[in-house]
Amino acid sequence: MPKHLQKDLEDLHRSLLRLAGYVEDAVVRATSALRSRDPDAAQEVVDGDHEIDELENQIQNNCLKILALHQPVAVDLRRISAVLMITTDLERIGDLAVGIAERVAVLARPPHVPIPDQFEAMTERTLRMLHSSLDAFVNGDPITAAKVIRADDEVDRDNQELIAALVARMKNSPELVEPSLSLFSAVRHLERIADHATNIAEDVIYLVNGEIVRHKPDALEG
Amino acid sequence: MPKHLQKDLEDLHRSLLRLAGYVEDAVVRATSALRSRDPDAAQEVVDGDHEIDELENQIQNNCLKILALHQPVAVDLRRISAVLMITTDLERIGDLAVGIAERVAVLARPPHVPIPDQFEAMTERTLRMLHSSLDAFVNGDPITAAKVIRADDEVDRDNQELIAALVARMKNSPELVEPSLSLFSAVRHLERIADHATNIAEDVIYLVNGEIVRHKPDALEG
Repeated sequence: MPKHLQKDLEDLHRSLLRLAGYVEDAVVRATSALRSRDPDAAQEVVDGDHEIDELENQIQNNCLKILALHQPVAVDLRRISAVLMITTDLERIGDLAVGIAERVAVLARPPHVPIPDQFEAMTERTLRMLHSSLDAFVNGDPITAAKVIRADDEVDRDNQELIAALVARMKNSPELVEPSLSLFSAVRHLERIADHATNIAEDVIYLVNGEIVRHKPDALEG
Repeated sequence: MPKHLQKDLEDLHRSLLRLAGYVEDAVVRATSALRSRDPDAAQEVVDGDHEIDELENQIQNNCLKILALHQPVAVDLRRISAVLMITTDLERIGDLAVGIAERVAVLARPPHVPIPDQFEAMTERTLRMLHSSLDAFVNGDPITAAKVIRADDEVDRDNQELIAALVARMKNSPELVEPSLSLFSAVRHLERIADHATNIAEDVIYLVNGEIVRHKPDALEG
């Protein structure tokens, strides 16, 4: 590989990890603002999203420039293609963190709907998936990637149990319909974050094995 | 522009319009299956999604190949970059159509929650936005694109009014909480389809004017 291509790829790598750091941080802060019903902390997540968007645009432009400049083939082409796809997933996770943060205003107003402990468990599981999917990318590790894909089933179970609990709450306490609906949206956003972590893991397997596993039927979001 | 680059771009164009046709059709069929509470028609949308995913992968691979082969610059580079972004939006609209179709099973079971007329109005507005955004791309027409971006405010209003009606319904009729929640999800999906049409319109403006308008704060999805 030409030396300047290698350097460009390393720079791309570093930008992607910086984006990943911003995005993980946004998810941590949005879910924690939700659990503590803190609208100011939530607003900071909303305000910070433009940095994620800018970095996404920058990485995507760099990918296109590298493609046009170096005409990479085989594994390098696959790597840049994977960076493009992972960047899109990360940017969408950032949007979903904003979506969670935007639910905090309603949840902070009385009457308060209790936030089930399982929301925290689901959040932790989702964050672990996201972190592992990025580790798998950095290390080119398809075994960790496969574990992330399997973990998505557990998040789907959390999601279903939380939604069943919220349905019961809305039936029994009509005065809690509005905050329950906001919590429902936050849970659905979290589930979609886990779906995007799964997409990233699938991209890692594509990168390492050249096999496309994205868009398996059960990876659809609802 | 070299003749073979022009031919490759024309092929890319045609594939993108084919993808757009599939995706528009999926949205029409999913929303119509919902209104008629027809689970079989809904299942066809779910089953057809893999064609959309395959065509998306194919277009994205072709974009990367053209970039590596022809090293296009300036407007051609912007055009391929726009095709990449629009393809991603179309694929996500396809997923959202599947998400709407997946809500039909619950809505088909009694007790039936009434589906407000405004759902149809919101569907029609959203489909017009999607169609116009693609027309704007084909014709390189920033005026039509700007109209699409403005129309998103109307869809947001539909969305808010429909959700207020659903909240009232859930408060007054606890036995309708589950189907109302499915309808709520379908409405949110439709609103996100309109957001993706807005993204496409923003990409057209970028393509024509070289100005990035994606990721304006109000384009965030909730």
